[in-house]
Amino acid sequence: MTTRFISFLNPAGEPSFGIVDGDGVIDLGRREAAADLAGFIAAGGIAGAAKHAGAEPDHALDAVTLLPVIPAPPRIICVGLNYRAHVAETGRPDSERPTIFLRLASSQVAHGAPMIRPRESERFDYEGELAVIIGKAGRRISQADALDHVAGYSCYNDGSVRDWQKHTSQWAPGKNFPSTGAFGPWMIPAADLPGRESCALVTRLNGQEVQRATLSQMIFSIEELIAYASIFTRLEPGDVIVSGTPGGVGDRRDPPLYMRDGDQVTVEIDGIGMLSNPVADEG
Amino acid sequence: MTTRFISFLNPAGEPSFGIVDGDGVIDLGRREAAADLAGFIAAGGIAGAAKHAGAEPDHALDAVTLLPVIPAPPRIICVGLNYRAHVAETGRPDSERPTIFLRLASSQVAHGAPMIRPRESERFDYEGELAVIIGKAGRRISQADALDHVAGYSCYNDGSVRDWQKHTSQWAPGKNFPSTGAFGPWMIPAADLPGRESCALVTRLNGQEVQRATLSQMIFSIEELIAYASIFTRLEPGDVIVSGTPGGVGDRRDPPLYMRDGDQVTVEIDGIGMLSNPVADEG
Repeated sequence: MTTRFISFLNPAGEPSFGIVDGDGVIDLGRREAAADLAGFIAAGGIAGAAKHAGAEPDHALDAVTLLPVIPAPPRIICVGLNYRAHVAETGRPDSERPTIFLRLASSQVAHGAPMIRPRESERFDYEGELAVIIGKAGRRISQADALDHVAGYSCYNDGSVRDWQKHTSQWAPGKNFPSTGAFGPWMIPAADLPGRESCALVTRLNGQEVQRATLSQMIFSIEELIAYASIFTRLEPGDVIVSGTPGGVGDRRDPPLYMRDGDQVTVEIDGIGMLSNPVADEG
Repeated sequence: MTTRFISFLNPAGEPSFGIVDGDGVIDLGRREAAADLAGFIAAGGIAGAAKHAGAEPDHALDAVTLLPVIPAPPRIICVGLNYRAHVAETGRPDSERPTIFLRLASSQVAHGAPMIRPRESERFDYEGELAVIIGKAGRRISQADALDHVAGYSCYNDGSVRDWQKHTSQWAPGKNFPSTGAFGPWMIPAADLPGRESCALVTRLNGQEVQRATLSQMIFSIEELIAYASIFTRLEPGDVIVSGTPGGVGDRRDPPLYMRDGDQVTVEIDGIGMLSNPVADEG
């Protein structure tokens, strides 16, 4: 049985973090010194968290409000063009290096909360991705050591405001609208996902499969991404690497398929779980 | 006499913020409730800071260690291609929208501290720019209201690792190496810079002028940049908009002119001051 770490607001509205246990939550914010899940990871807490298994849950799962798995990562390092079928559908040339852009924490949204189509856009698109959560700091991490720096994995929907992404050569505006980057529902420790490479990643829009890949199909592996990114910035616990999306994005379909008010979008990864969000027009 | 706000480490190595007064520093961290300059700005402190003028300085200016003006901005929103001569030298087409990318706070460096050429690069370049520091939060700020959201101005050297900037279409890797984004020496309140549009911006490498422009030559004005950026993200006090560099960057010269160990680079803006940094190879 794998351990599922979440960040949440308790029934009093206070931020905390903990472990999902059946339909309950063991509140580690009450039991541990760390202020949040990133701090708990930084303090090396993940490996010892098993000691809390079997504790009496503090909250009903449906009484807490989930937050993005890491609500305020020091860095959200997003990777573009990292599956062959997606590179092909964009018509872009292959690259010898990972294509990297940044998200702001303010663009994130939790499992279950609406992904928001801003009123400025007619082209709000899904991108199912594997999120890699960094557990140990490092600069110029070798590929051989890279997985030692991973705390765990989660699902990410790198929701993209395509019209704004393509205003200029740089994608940041289209990747940073509030409530567009869905992250959850939980983090699975890396040790609990030994067969990561063979896991399938599937995105569904209103139950219809729109993206499917096996994680081994990444052009740049997790090890290569960590090695590359840690050259230009020192990675820290709680950093997130959003590792790229498979083919099948809505913007490259004919006709295009965008997310609309009332839609339901999911990103499911074997061994991790399913991130699910309604889509809503901005109120 | 304009007020010059700095962030610094006091002689005991503790972070604080204050006002430069001659060769002394009035330590506002001791006198005000705010934890840092961004918090002081958010609390509306700038307008009332004149009451501290004439206080006995707490430190000698040369006894404190300057920090980047805002050491950890919630957002560092950088603008590319915002002066005609720079657009021309890059050979890129004009764009109807500002070209926006993001910096991480970990890439910043203070006035006086070395800008570091990473060992992976042979193409470390300067970019003198005006930094705009946001004072009041807002989303979808109109151009008419934009300047009400500005706390003040500073100088920025958007040091660019050109080889890494051009690995792919996205510039983030080349703009986020540690100690490449110089920010300082101080913030001048917006009210103290009424003639901003006519101010000259001059970058010098080893005393030689390499960039010169008037701030009115920006393609997208400060008002337009604030209006545009605040559509895709809610701006907060302490956010920084780094507003683009004039023509004359080293990478587009023939022969190219890169920053080298032992160089001295300055960015001077009329009415604000001069940001000065040595350049050093990574140790």
